[in-house]
Amino acid sequence: MMKALVFDGTLRLAEMPLPSRSGDEVLVRVTKAGICNTDHEIVAGYMPGFKGTLGHEFLGVVEKADDKKLVGKRVTAEINCGCGTCDWCKSGMERHCPNRSVIGIKDRDGAFAEYICVPARNVVTVPDSIPDTNAIFIEPLAAALEIPEQISLENKSVLLIGDGKLGLLIAHAVRMSHCDMLVLGKHQENLALLAAKGIKTVLARDFVKKQFDVVIEASGSPAAFPIAVECVKPRRSIVLKSTYAHNLAFNPAPIVVNEITLIGSRCGRFTDALRFLETCKPDFSPMISKEFSIENGMEAFEYSKISGVLKVIIKM
Amino acid sequence: MMKALVFDGTLRLAEMPLPSRSGDEVLVRVTKAGICNTDHEIVAGYMPGFKGTLGHEFLGVVEKADDKKLVGKRVTAEINCGCGTCDWCKSGMERHCPNRSVIGIKDRDGAFAEYICVPARNVVTVPDSIPDTNAIFIEPLAAALEIPEQISLENKSVLLIGDGKLGLLIAHAVRMSHCDMLVLGKHQENLALLAAKGIKTVLARDFVKKQFDVVIEASGSPAAFPIAVECVKPRRSIVLKSTYAHNLAFNPAPIVVNEITLIGSRCGRFTDALRFLETCKPDFSPMISKEFSIENGMEAFEYSKISGVLKVIIKM
Repeated sequence: MMKALVFDGTLRLAEMPLPSRSGDEVLVRVTKAGICNTDHEIVAGYMPGFKGTLGHEFLGVVEKADDKKLVGKRVTAEINCGCGTCDWCKSGMERHCPNRSVIGIKDRDGAFAEYICVPARNVVTVPDSIPDTNAIFIEPLAAALEIPEQISLENKSVLLIGDGKLGLLIAHAVRMSHCDMLVLGKHQENLALLAAKGIKTVLARDFVKKQFDVVIEASGSPAAFPIAVECVKPRRSIVLKSTYAHNLAFNPAPIVVNEITLIGSRCGRFTDALRFLETCKPDFSPMISKEFSIENGMEAFEYSKISGVLKVIIKM
Repeated sequence: MMKALVFDGTLRLAEMPLPSRSGDEVLVRVTKAGICNTDHEIVAGYMPGFKGTLGHEFLGVVEKADDKKLVGKRVTAEINCGCGTCDWCKSGMERHCPNRSVIGIKDRDGAFAEYICVPARNVVTVPDSIPDTNAIFIEPLAAALEIPEQISLENKSVLLIGDGKLGLLIAHAVRMSHCDMLVLGKHQENLALLAAKGIKTVLARDFVKKQFDVVIEASGSPAAFPIAVECVKPRRSIVLKSTYAHNLAFNPAPIVVNEITLIGSRCGRFTDALRFLETCKPDFSPMISKEFSIENGMEAFEYSKISGVLKVIIKM
């Protein structure tokens, strides 16, 4: 048996049987897992169909695999598990496979547990040069790096709304795009982490509205959307990075009249995140707010809900 | 004095003084003007600031102009009147000038009147080869042609939602883009106009949902937006052409998760519409539902509200 944080309408710490490998799966002993806003959204009802172990950001050590070279390796895993046969999967876009399962999000148990099974093709070995304190951010960093994959930011003025976990990673990802970026946030202490790296920041209460070429909405709050619309130039773009459990109500007229483009943006490629961590050698450790043992997983969840708290880690 | 349809909180037929030219304006005797959904939206409160004569789709004859060669010419006018000095205006994008007035929509009297003054640089002479029954559609046709300006449609599967006035024009504009288009509508008789031209159509009640590369939402109804989201492939685009007086409420999660791009689309260039009418020589006369005299303008407005009614013309 093993400990796991299981959601079945409510979240609870449970004793679960060890998972057994099927097909080409690999058994990983989880060492650390990060709590993401998506985990909170699931608990709030954002993925009505999901029941199982939560958690999709993790590090672990391979214990069993058909490929013996994998055993003992420190790994993480791409969260989207595609069917492998559709056009999306064949073009390397498993993350849009219509039949995919998603680790800890859709039809597949997640990593808030002592063990997890993941498809071998999803396993990503983490190079020794990347410390755990950076590697634990691979999944959300890949999501952050998806933005410059989708839209050219070079020489553009960029407003990034949000200074939470994802916002800070996006700031690190976007600053490499040779753009003029301002980060708008609500948490002085989080913005200070960026300011220390020479990134321009402004507190919401001091922000004087002006217009930017690109606005990235990563605040996780529906309240930021009207600000994004007000602060984007005509014919320019808003990148939507936030998902919410609830509806967004807005008048589409300014979008149509000003010919704004909204770009939905989600997961990116883990290989891009690895390259970023190896090349740029950032230090993401100040973004880890606190670590909890799996036994205190419920407490970890509550703690990570506090406004301004950044990454909360569950250690197995 | 002249007759005009004036909106000042409510719409009414009024006797107004003849407009007098200022600056570089041209005086046009209006012959015909078309009622657009935007006119109804203004009456419904969509442009809270506007008071004055409505109407922005029109044909007329120049009576007074500094450039004497213009006098006697059959003309229409680009509706966005830019400041002429900002970066938008200098790059030929007066329609996004932040200080623009818009004929019959914003800070400038419109064409539901016997006379109108418009800036000389907005005047567009209509070639003799284009009959009134096509020329009256220049403004909405330009808006339809804006779509293939914004997004490449070649070899794409396209779902066009909407078989109203604008929807039909978009169908004509988009079919030239060598794409595989299906038009989804609610009015058998309107779809029949397209089917007669070899365009694929389907009634809403017979539509079996599938996914397209591009969905163009031109129904004018917020109810169509969720259908657009359901019917667009991941990483593909929805073109938003409808404006509504009321808010749109939707959950942005599918936009983010499927990385959908929403493209707001509004006015286009009149020169593109003229070229289309001269080259393709369509016959838009079946899209004119009825003509009314300006004296019966209020009745014309009521008539044009009826579901399925296409272009209603006011004759001076």
